[in-house]
Amino acid sequence: MIDGHTRLIAHIGFPTHSFKAPLIYNPYFDAAGINAVVVPMGVPRADFAEAFPVITRFSNFHGALITMPHKVAIVPMLDRVSTAVTVAGACNAVRRDADGALVGDMFDGEGFARGVLRKGRRIAGAAALIVGAGGVGSAIAAALAGHGLAHLRLHDTDTAAAAGLAARLVAHHPALTVEVGSPDPAGMALAVNATPLGMSDGDPLPMAVDRLAADALVGEVVMRAEITPFLRAALARGCAVQVGTDMLFEQIPAYLEFFGFPTTDADHLRQLARFTP
Amino acid sequence: MIDGHTRLIAHIGFPTHSFKAPLIYNPYFDAAGINAVVVPMGVPRADFAEAFPVITRFSNFHGALITMPHKVAIVPMLDRVSTAVTVAGACNAVRRDADGALVGDMFDGEGFARGVLRKGRRIAGAAALIVGAGGVGSAIAAALAGHGLAHLRLHDTDTAAAAGLAARLVAHHPALTVEVGSPDPAGMALAVNATPLGMSDGDPLPMAVDRLAADALVGEVVMRAEITPFLRAALARGCAVQVGTDMLFEQIPAYLEFFGFPTTDADHLRQLARFTP
Repeated sequence: MIDGHTRLIAHIGFPTHSFKAPLIYNPYFDAAGINAVVVPMGVPRADFAEAFPVITRFSNFHGALITMPHKVAIVPMLDRVSTAVTVAGACNAVRRDADGALVGDMFDGEGFARGVLRKGRRIAGAAALIVGAGGVGSAIAAALAGHGLAHLRLHDTDTAAAAGLAARLVAHHPALTVEVGSPDPAGMALAVNATPLGMSDGDPLPMAVDRLAADALVGEVVMRAEITPFLRAALARGCAVQVGTDMLFEQIPAYLEFFGFPTTDADHLRQLARFTP
Repeated sequence: MIDGHTRLIAHIGFPTHSFKAPLIYNPYFDAAGINAVVVPMGVPRADFAEAFPVITRFSNFHGALITMPHKVAIVPMLDRVSTAVTVAGACNAVRRDADGALVGDMFDGEGFARGVLRKGRRIAGAAALIVGAGGVGSAIAAALAGHGLAHLRLHDTDTAAAAGLAARLVAHHPALTVEVGSPDPAGMALAVNATPLGMSDGDPLPMAVDRLAADALVGEVVMRAEITPFLRAALARGCAVQVGTDMLFEQIPAYLEFFGFPTTDADHLRQLARFTP
């Protein structure tokens, strides 16, 4: 129940219609007796530079979740950011620390990595293909690198975006090798779709499924359905899969810690959540 | 349950700790299946001129409840205001109309008047004493004038404030006579405390209770307790009384109508509300 003491997590993006975070965080806050609330605030791109500082000065501001189209624009507005933010070039969580500093982090990729680890797979020393070097692909790449990935193959139709991400990855993770090139999953322990392919009927698959190693773990970021056409094809080939909502729910405990709230595990959050993809 | 379609009623003031509106509106919205939420936003005085336009441009902005210390500052920022706003010089509810205009109204006083009418008392043609010509006293005076009050005696230790309110009342309600002077309730059918007296232990009573007509209706705006020392003294004299929360709950249906929501009555809202004064 919202009252005058409730701490506000501003969920800032535009449009707001597809926002999922309120449907995950708020039932958990209710169940855990945490007096906080995630509130969508629809801020169009042109308003963000003016709106963000205003929102952070609300006396009941506790933090913000930043989503499309502001994840990149937010970065230079912060006082401190994590390595994941620097590498991904994007940020989706902000809190104000006791010294007044606005601190940014990014756990989308960490959610993906936690899901992989919970499935008993190793990231340290492994090789991965990520198709898509946009916001979510960058975040996944940064997180896998942070967990000790040995080799990354990166593909994006925007070659410059892929090359830029590769350069930032190598700069911060010298032990990692990165190749920018084809979306070929051959020989990769992990193969990830980080493009929107699968959001629309008739989309092509993001990679050549017949080139997947049979023991690969195949990950997906699209949440339109639990089993997207890409994952269905990977399952048919005998691969293990990670669905889009695994990344979503695995990242929430990291955000709860970041915001200083008591945390829980992804399964508990999934049980409480009020939406089905 | 807040989602990406939820309409936002920004409750803007500072500090937020004593805000009551979320505890009244939100349980009603839940019970009535209205996808809207009242969210406190703590905006200090110095930030208001910058923050208010930003908030009204949120794509999910539906309206705002404006409270201390912004009720007066808001008025020149609006495109259209009601007569009650003009007379009271203050506004506490804003919506955006289809033409994009920001429209302001003020129903604190209307809540008081509805409570009086629901107790079977007449306002039209009657005489009233209001002690206190600040925000709430001004609102009550404007509403009683709108309901056809014949004569008003107005007292405030700030004589200029009382005189200014008297001038605005007479300008908009030519049939009303207003005298600015002593807080004497003799001969008044309605006698209202619209000062903060009663908020603190040991406060003097706002008027000479032994001068109350025995058939007067005595109204109170202080909500520290249902029966304040002033109301206790009035009851001892045999008067009928209107408690502070009557004004609070009687005004909510007017705000619901103003915001375009399905409405209900004060008793239903009181049953659902999650606070006790």
